[in-house]
Order: sequence, then structure tokens, then C-alpha cells
Amino acid sequence: MELLNRIGENAKAASRTLAGLSGAVRDRGLEMLAQGLLDACEDILAANAQDLEAGRQNGLRDAMLDRLRLTRERIEGMASGIREIIALPDPIGRTLSGTTAPNGLKIRKVTVPLGVIAIIYEARPNVTSDAAALCLKSGNAVVLRGGKEAIRSNRAIAECMRRSLRSAGIDENCIQLIEDTSRETAEGLMKLNDYIDVLIPRGGAGLIRNVVMNSTVPVIQTGAGNCHIYVDRTADVDMAAEIIFNAKTSRPSVCNACESLLIHRDIAREVLPVIKARLDEKQVEIRGDDVVCEILQDTVPASEEDWGTEYLDYIISVKTVGSVEEAIAHINRYSTHHSECIVTQDYRAAQQFQDEVDSAAVYVNASTRFTDGGMFGFGAEIGISTQKLHARGPLGLPELTTFKYLIDGNGQVR
Amino acid sequence: MELLNRIGENAKAASRTLAGLSGAVRDRGLEMLAQGLLDACEDILAANAQDLEAGRQNGLRDAMLDRLRLTRERIEGMASGIREIIALPDPIGRTLSGTTAPNGLKIRKVTVPLGVIAIIYEARPNVTSDAAALCLKSGNAVVLRGGKEAIRSNRAIAECMRRSLRSAGIDENCIQLIEDTSRETAEGLMKLNDYIDVLIPRGGAGLIRNVVMNSTVPVIQTGAGNCHIYVDRTADVDMAAEIIFNAKTSRPSVCNACESLLIHRDIAREVLPVIKARLDEKQVEIRGDDVVCEILQDTVPASEEDWGTEYLDYIISVKTVGSVEEAIAHINRYSTHHSECIVTQDYRAAQQFQDEVDSAAVYVNASTRFTDGGMFGFGAEIGISTQKLHARGPLGLPELTTFKYLIDGNGQVR
Repeated sequence: MELLNRIGENAKAASRTLAGLSGAVRDRGLEMLAQGLLDACEDILAANAQDLEAGRQNGLRDAMLDRLRLTRERIEGMASGIREIIALPDPIGRTLSGTTAPNGLKIRKVTVPLGVIAIIYEARPNVTSDAAALCLKSGNAVVLRGGKEAIRSNRAIAECMRRSLRSAGIDENCIQLIEDTSRETAEGLMKLNDYIDVLIPRGGAGLIRNVVMNSTVPVIQTGAGNCHIYVDRTADVDMAAEIIFNAKTSRPSVCNACESLLIHRDIAREVLPVIKARLDEKQVEIRGDDVVCEILQDTVPASEEDWGTEYLDYIISVKTVGSVEEAIAHINRYSTHHSECIVTQDYRAAQQFQDEVDSAAVYVNASTRFTDGGMFGFGAEIGISTQKLHARGPLGLPELTTFKYLIDGNGQVR
Repeated sequence: MELLNRIGENAKAASRTLAGLSGAVRDRGLEMLAQGLLDACEDILAANAQDLEAGRQNGLRDAMLDRLRLTRERIEGMASGIREIIALPDPIGRTLSGTTAPNGLKIRKVTVPLGVIAIIYEARPNVTSDAAALCLKSGNAVVLRGGKEAIRSNRAIAECMRRSLRSAGIDENCIQLIEDTSRETAEGLMKLNDYIDVLIPRGGAGLIRNVVMNSTVPVIQTGAGNCHIYVDRTADVDMAAEIIFNAKTSRPSVCNACESLLIHRDIAREVLPVIKARLDEKQVEIRGDDVVCEILQDTVPASEEDWGTEYLDYIISVKTVGSVEEAIAHINRYSTHHSECIVTQDYRAAQQFQDEVDSAAVYVNASTRFTDGGMFGFGAEIGISTQKLHARGPLGLPELTTFKYLIDGNGQVR
């Protein structure tokens, strides 16, 4: 596709110049990005109003419209998000290790940008500035392909950012938006191996699955979170209820929210009513197995499909198990390998759960909601990786880099 | 495909038990693998003789037959290769970093096995034991899919290794060989996302391209090496000739051999005859641009295709350039991003070359042949990664691991 090849070439060329810029110059560019967003606030809001109007006419749901909506406060939030990124340490040019070989060769392993990062995302226009800023900080050119619902907002934000780059003397092609939001451009991007070094999908399970199944460019899979909490036989009941309440209801639409509960049968009768009382405060629907349905009246019976479902809503599946081993086996089978928690006072069970659960973050006695770049001390994140290659868990700036080996010699041959 | 799903399920189950074994148990398994190969030497040689006979009947070239051939010495080499792997530090269970968050959460980042690694390779039966041993050491189950030419040898080696695992009390499905060498099994393996965590192709450019273009499982791309040496205006001529002679002729069939030469025009007349005299010792064919053809009589003119060709033979392409910038641009365009070298006495040129060349290993004044796990001090390698995600350059044991975050709390909620 002509358009994509041109964008790819521009991005590759821009990434070469970007790799040569010092951290100070990249930070100056970021400051101009932040200031530029504030200066262009009215234009961006006007474009966003058009997107919202079109969205309403096309019957978008309220939750979708809310994700799409920008306000002055949200734009200020985008700008201050960029300033927080400026404050983070430069991930580029760090010597990770180094050695002098017996023959005198000096070998250093030094961090460098990945090159060109493509992001495919849906209707959140703030991703446009968040992703661009993280990529600029880490010395990567970015190609953005947002959803059609947000195209006017994204165009306004991207134009504003490219203007800021020009003012900062940085190649504006470090940030490119694909304005054609047809399926063809997304699919073309997934095959653009000559120009794109890594592709990161941000959005729902359908988008991510589509990218994983169709991309020939290396992918970092993010975001799907069928997170479990297992309440062990020895759990502190009040702690369990508090953690479950927090993990399920503090923000049900995010990927680190709890979707499924496992309860040891020995304490099911004691703990389920306490948990239900807490969840009732937010009208959470419980879908349970036979034992749960028997203990809690009016519970919806869970189907096989429920165990694998990420509701992103005020719904939770609940299953009883006979042992920590059964809990671990269930989680390893149905989880998306994001975040899981055991609530227990048993040392051996805690160790076994952390050893054997195959997920990015494995908690003892704490809410799964902590799986987050900010909470882990990374300062910013571009998503949560649920794959094992390259990056697992919150994707911070270091995960947007690669490295090369620099070898200095004086004529060594082998 | 029924067969692949069964192999995948077995591998996943085996990987769960393997992840729970201590380093000492894995090392004991490796020792039994090594001893088992020596004990089964006659059987393996007999199977290999059948492969060789079939290969001859099918008209395999001598180079191919040589790769296929096992001898007592080569099997002893495979066994001692496994013993070298035993001596390496355990890559599993290392705490990479850790912190206590302000709310008291203790967060640790700890290395764990990737899970199930699939290797698709060609006609080298030693890969069967090398790859299996590296995977066992790093706690990964392995699914091996070798070429049809080596199937009898591979089967004998795999059976022997599985017997050794059983004797060591380790699930034999930690090592599985796909005995059906049809194209369908290779293609099915590339789509086995439910069971395979990472797929590593080992072989020629065609195999690797096929895997990259068709795999939905995450891939680590290895092996293609169109490596360049650039002789700068200030180069020490004798050093340049020595490095080029070594990088081209010490082992032309490997991926870190030099395939293309760039010479600064200012010294072309001085340096080319010296280089040619050295390369003539091994009858290396030179394919040159116009300037080279004018300076060196009887040089074959290079075509556009030559600049992108990995010969793996006694052939080298030679081009003259006007500056270090032109050399860097040519390399970034035609290279496979494996290993490149500048020969220079100019400090600024050396720095610029290392900064701007986008390859896994960038040398000043040393042979590209050093890009190798052993030479870099990793002790063993499963290939050289030419991609930027997860691993770049020699793939040692640490590159066969991922990590998880283990978080310990006492009731923290967000």
C-alpha cells in the first residue's frame, strides 16, 4: 500500500535522526509537545465535539462516548502526563553490562531505541499523546493508527504535536498518524516488516486477537486481564472481602480488575456471605458454581464460558475449589496471565501459589489493581504485557528500548 | 491438527512440572542426557548412516551431507557441549530487581522459564541435543521439528534423551520431537499459540523468512548475517587486510562471516590490491562496483542484488564510498543487522559508526567473527538474534527466560 510505505519510510528516516538526539533535546521536544497541547486546547476540543456528535449520531454507547470525550481538564491531564514523562530518567545510552575479553576486546551492551513503534488503538484520543510522548522520550519514531470514532480528535492532536516537533527542530515524522482508518490500513501496518520494529495493540480483546493472529511484525500483546483472586482455607475473611471489593469495584473497566473468584470449599459457607454483602454495595452480579448457588440464594449459575470471560463490568464469576493445587490449575487454564492473587495466612500455600501460577504479577494478600506502571514505580506505562517475550507486566520506558553490543578492538581476529 | 495439539498439551504439562524442579535436579538430568548420548553412540551412528545413505540416493550436495554426518567424535562433542551447559549458572529464580512501595507492598521481579520453546531447524542433528540441553537448563520444555533429511538421526537422539529424562525422574515430554516432517507440521507449529510460548527457527534465510511471515506464535528471528566491513580513509591497511581475511575466510558458511566490503575511495587504490592479495590465498571471488573493477583487473561487476546477498561462500562484494556517512547509510539499507565493523584510526568516525549503525554488534578494528555466545562469555548459544524484541545478538541462557513479578502484601487495596 503506497500510503503505508511512505509513512513507513518517513518513520524509519525520522527514527535514524531521533536516535542521534541527546536526552536533553528529546526532553525539550516533549516540553513543547505539552505546551502545544495546552495552546491548541480550543482546536482540539472543537474537533472532539465533532467526533462526539458523529458518535451520538452513529449510536455509540455512553461508555464509549465517555472514553472518546475530551475536556479542558483531560487535555491538561495529557499535558501534565507528558511533563511527568520528561521527569523520568533517559532510558537510552545506558550501559547494561560490559567486559573485556581475554584477547583484549572491550564489549559493551548499551541501550538504544527500538526504532519505529506502531500503535493500533481504539477510541481513546489521550492514547495519541501518551504513546507519542513515551516513544519520543525513548528515542522511537511512532506510527499511530487510532479508531475511526476519534479521527478528528486524533488528527487535531497529531497536527499539534507535529507542529511542536518542528518548532523544537525535530523531524516531525517522529510522530505520524494514519488518517485513513479503514481496515486495510490496520492490516497493512501489521505486515510492514521493512519499517516497523514492533507493533503494540491497545484496546479490547478482539483488537488484540486480530493483531496477534495477523501481524508478521513482532507484537507486544497487552491488556487482556481475566484476573483471579483465590481465597485460601486460612484466609483472613475481612481482608479477603476488602481485597475482592477493591479489585472488582474500584474500576471495573480496567485490565487489572478482578473477574473471577476461587474459594476454598472449607470456608465457603463462612466467607461467601461476607463477600456478597460487600459486593452488593455496588450491585455486583455473582455467577457461581453449584456450591456457590446453594450457599448464596438467587445466584446466577456460571457456564463454562464464564470462567474464561473478562467482563470489564460489575459481574464476577465464583467457583469453589478443594485445594490450592486445584486453584492454581484452574487459573493456569483460564487466565490471560495478567494478575492473580491468593489471600492466605498459610506460608506454604503462599509460596506454592507464587511459584506455580504462570502470570505476569502474582500477589499474596493484596489487590490485583496494583499491576500498573505507576504503582510499580515505572512512572508511566504504555500498557500491560500479557506475553512472555521481551516484556511482561507493565510496559515502562525500558521496555521501549533494545540494545546493541559495541565492541572495540585493535586488530583482533579469530 | 490432532498430533500437534497432543504434543502441545504434553509440552505445556511438562513445562509446569519442570518449572518446579531445582537447578540441581535439572543439572542431574543434563548429566544423564550427556552420558546417555555416549551410551547410545552406536545406535545413533547406525540411524545416521541410514540418513546419509538416503541423502546420497536423493542427491544431497556434499556440504549438506557433511552437516548431516555424525561421527563418534561429533557425538562426544555433543555430550561435552551438554557438560559445558551444566557448568553455567542457573538462569532461573534470579531476582532482577525488587522494591518496597510506599504502601508496604514488596515487589520482586524474578526470572522464570519461558515455558514451551519450539525449534524448527534443518539437517544438523547436533541441534537436537544442543537445543534440548539449553532448554532443559533454562527450565523450558522443548518441541523439536528438524528437517526430513535427518529424521532417523533425530529420532535416535530424541529417544535416547527421553530415556535419560525418565531415568532422572523428569517428565520425558520435556523433550519432544515431531517425527512427521511434512510441511503441515511446521506450519501447524507456527500457529500453536495455546501451547508454544516462543518459536526459534534455526537455518537458512528461506526457513527464517517462512517462519517470520507465517507464525502467529512469537518468534525470535536468528541467523541471517549479511555482515559488512568498512575500511575508512584512516585505516591501518595491514590491519584491515588481516581482519577482512579472517572475517571472510576463517569459516565462510557461518552467519558472522563478512559478506560485503566498503572502502573509502581515497584509499581504494592503495588498499584494494593488498586485500585482494590476501583473499587470493583462498580463491575468494570479488564482485565490485565500477571503481573496484577499474582498480582490480578481472573483477566480476556487482549487481544491485549482490549488496543484499549473504553468500556463505568464498565470494565477497566490494563497493567504494566517499564518506563514513555513505558507508553507514549503505549498511543500514542492505544489512541484516547482525554484525558490522569499521576499520579506522579516526576517533570521530569510530564513534559515529558505532552510534549510527543499526545492528546487533558494531565493531571497531576487530573481526565480525567474534559475534558468538562463547566469545561474548555467555558459554553457549542457541543462535544469533537479528531482531530487536526480547533478544539481540547471541542468545544465551538468560534470553531463554522471562520473569514474573511477585508481590507480597498484608491486605493492601488501592
